[in-house]
Amino acid sequence: MNARLLASVTFLLLSCGACLAAPAPPAPAEASSAAARLRDSALAGTQAFEFVRSLTTEVGPRSAGSPGDAAAVAWATAKLEALGFANVHAEKVTVPHWERGRNEGAILAPWPQRVALTALGGSAATPPSGLDAEVVGVATLDDLKKLDPGKAKGKIVFVWNRMERFRDGSGYRTAVAVRGTGAAEAAKLGAVGLLIRSVGTDSNRLPHTGSMQLDKGVPPVPAAAISGPDSDVLEQELRSGQAVRFHLDLETKTFPDAESANVIGEIPGRGAPGEIVLLGGHLDSWDLGTGAIDDGAGCAIVVEAARRIGRLPEGERPRRTIRVVLFANEEFGLSGAKAYALAHEKELPSHVLAGEADFGSGRVYRVGTRIAPSALPAFKTLAEVVAPLGIEIDPANDAEGGADISPLAPAGVPVVSFDQDGTTYFDVHHSANDTADKIDPKDLDQAVAAWSALIYSVAASDVKLGPAPAPKEPE
Amino acid sequence: MNARLLASVTFLLLSCGACLAAPAPPAPAEASSAAARLRDSALAGTQAFEFVRSLTTEVGPRSAGSPGDAAAVAWATAKLEALGFANVHAEKVTVPHWERGRNEGAILAPWPQRVALTALGGSAATPPSGLDAEVVGVATLDDLKKLDPGKAKGKIVFVWNRMERFRDGSGYRTAVAVRGTGAAEAAKLGAVGLLIRSVGTDSNRLPHTGSMQLDKGVPPVPAAAISGPDSDVLEQELRSGQAVRFHLDLETKTFPDAESANVIGEIPGRGAPGEIVLLGGHLDSWDLGTGAIDDGAGCAIVVEAARRIGRLPEGERPRRTIRVVLFANEEFGLSGAKAYALAHEKELPSHVLAGEADFGSGRVYRVGTRIAPSALPAFKTLAEVVAPLGIEIDPANDAEGGADISPLAPAGVPVVSFDQDGTTYFDVHHSANDTADKIDPKDLDQAVAAWSALIYSVAASDVKLGPAPAPKEPE
Repeated sequence: MNARLLASVTFLLLSCGACLAAPAPPAPAEASSAAARLRDSALAGTQAFEFVRSLTTEVGPRSAGSPGDAAAVAWATAKLEALGFANVHAEKVTVPHWERGRNEGAILAPWPQRVALTALGGSAATPPSGLDAEVVGVATLDDLKKLDPGKAKGKIVFVWNRMERFRDGSGYRTAVAVRGTGAAEAAKLGAVGLLIRSVGTDSNRLPHTGSMQLDKGVPPVPAAAISGPDSDVLEQELRSGQAVRFHLDLETKTFPDAESANVIGEIPGRGAPGEIVLLGGHLDSWDLGTGAIDDGAGCAIVVEAARRIGRLPEGERPRRTIRVVLFANEEFGLSGAKAYALAHEKELPSHVLAGEADFGSGRVYRVGTRIAPSALPAFKTLAEVVAPLGIEIDPANDAEGGADISPLAPAGVPVVSFDQDGTTYFDVHHSANDTADKIDPKDLDQAVAAWSALIYSVAASDVKLGPAPAPKEPE
Repeated sequence: MNARLLASVTFLLLSCGACLAAPAPPAPAEASSAAARLRDSALAGTQAFEFVRSLTTEVGPRSAGSPGDAAAVAWATAKLEALGFANVHAEKVTVPHWERGRNEGAILAPWPQRVALTALGGSAATPPSGLDAEVVGVATLDDLKKLDPGKAKGKIVFVWNRMERFRDGSGYRTAVAVRGTGAAEAAKLGAVGLLIRSVGTDSNRLPHTGSMQLDKGVPPVPAAAISGPDSDVLEQELRSGQAVRFHLDLETKTFPDAESANVIGEIPGRGAPGEIVLLGGHLDSWDLGTGAIDDGAGCAIVVEAARRIGRLPEGERPRRTIRVVLFANEEFGLSGAKAYALAHEKELPSHVLAGEADFGSGRVYRVGTRIAPSALPAFKTLAEVVAPLGIEIDPANDAEGGADISPLAPAGVPVVSFDQDGTTYFDVHHSANDTADKIDPKDLDQAVAAWSALIYSVAASDVKLGPAPAPKEPE
């Protein structure tokens, strides 16, 4: 190769990495047709469920810092490679490492009963042989805050509030507050332990765990969630008017921080590869189940949506890069999300849109946004492709976009949310019942249809969606 | 009192115990009206659910020989007294006493996973530190029987057959066979353990226990049931084609026989108190749940049905005695049923009808019989009272009537069955999920309506229903 030719090739490579081998990005009409085909072909069947089955079988539980966490990073890296993603790599993330150990409990009096319970994530341990104390019951976190310290001192506080079931999962936001701060509030009153009715909508004897806040000034007391049916029995015993005594034994342990990783793979853009559409899921799960709906399903949806876009004929491949990020440790402090925002800080202005699938395997019924208001008409046009899936557009323009997306908010990254039917999500969320059999593969396919069609439309376009307004509530 | 008056009074007392204070038993038209009122008033609300809630809260699990068993006998005796039953007493029954202890399991390779499992009732223990072995999977008990001993020797056999869901629970009969004899069949082949997919229709990580047969010649190997979702994972690991290794740890223990009791109470007949209509339920439960649907619900239905009959105005009280028997140890060998049949052998010819409620809390949709064919038209007339409840009469006349009723078959005791909707019964049967919250009180009320109205009609009549033909299959 002579010097002149070499210079020409170098110029071409630098100015347009993908131009040599490929035609220009698709025109709007071509893009619209490709998006519709992505949508319809996904409805005919995808590999999304197989992704979840593989993850839940070959890895299973994968809480931050556990052996399963490391196995998941290795599995995901190999899987993205095998699925044909480009630039597959793991970005190191430091994560907390808390282990549950043995969690047991029983009502001792007036009527002895075993109780199915599990420690809240991050809970302190009880003394090695457990603790025995009288129970004082209250309905809500507000009632707990108002409790006379004389009635709580030396006791275990039990909060029996029930979560309500809604399609959008909005019962969670109110019900979960006691899980976050109840143990610190109980500690302020001189209580020795906290029991809550599981934050869940099922009636199985499988308690639901979830993180508690550890930085509330007062060191929180040991705290556990009781299954719904066991909460019923404890309520009944309290209603007898007799003193109720409880044995609580939590063998929890906090270890030094551990190493995990965000696993990343890309479908490189052909025209504007530096513009990034970020699709997220989180790779970690709680330890009780195999993390099928939380968040194997979300990872499967975004990986499969991106994979299908990447397999389009060369002429239809989108101009922007689609980056899939499988975040580390969402459950116990958003470690991966924070690390990503920090490591990619300079690149965030080039994130043209971001969204996370982290609400199970139900069908998408609505798409929400938080984008520049001036961009809403253009987005609405791009989103027409998902209308045949029965999906409406939420006009509120105040979407959160997923917990792992929230650290990108200060940079004004535009956000999309694919709102899934969560009617049964909290039946199994954070419990041992979070397993692959809970997923209907056809529902996953519908979500893949929605994500792949709309994300493709955005990635194939040059529509500018940012900067996004600040979220309504600081995350 | 002079001698002549005393003689007259004595004569009256001896010849007609109830005649002094009461009018004659109700005429057919009166009885029909009373039966209809029993039916309709039960639909308006009964105490049946409160009975279950009290039993499951104040006693809870009550497997044969356990402290809960003794507590249940004391509770039931006091409860029947408090509810106004006559002749309340506990008839001693010797029962086996087997305890579950710690039951744990895990897949060791190729992909380690914890497994939710529970020992089958009566299972031998594993060595104290558990046993590790390769797993060989088969679909059915027949496949197990045909397995090459060379492929089973030294291994744990896993049978993954799934139970099918039907309203009448008929999927149970085929699915349960492997629970009874699988461990002995596996032992014949030189296997070291048996795992079965839980005999249940749910998808919760709560395994279902149940008795296994211990007298099959070969001492059965240690045997456990795996929850449905865990069975799925084990199946997936086997399908990988790699060797699957399993750790099974069953700390079961068999103790010397213990003392329990059948708890009995009566609504004495006014005209023919020696003629007995027997209503049964069983007081024992498995140890994993609180025995709400199996068989707190059945006990509640028959107790409440009898109680409501006993509270009719004096002139409407039935001529025959209604005897409620809450049997000891149905689950692990029918100890109470056999003891009752033996102790009351001479009285069995006076049992004009017997039935047991032992199929949960669903609505009654059909009434079955096994009575003298000549009595079918008369029974059909008596049963017209339950037609408005949507209940049909099964013309087959081959009802079993309940496991605890089966030892009465050789005496030709006529049998009635109130067939309840069992669509969801095997979701929770024999699992930790058998708790009071699974019951819709209105469904129990409907069953009470059916039992009270029809049993009253029979007890108020002088229709002879026996002798019953032999059951189709020997029990």
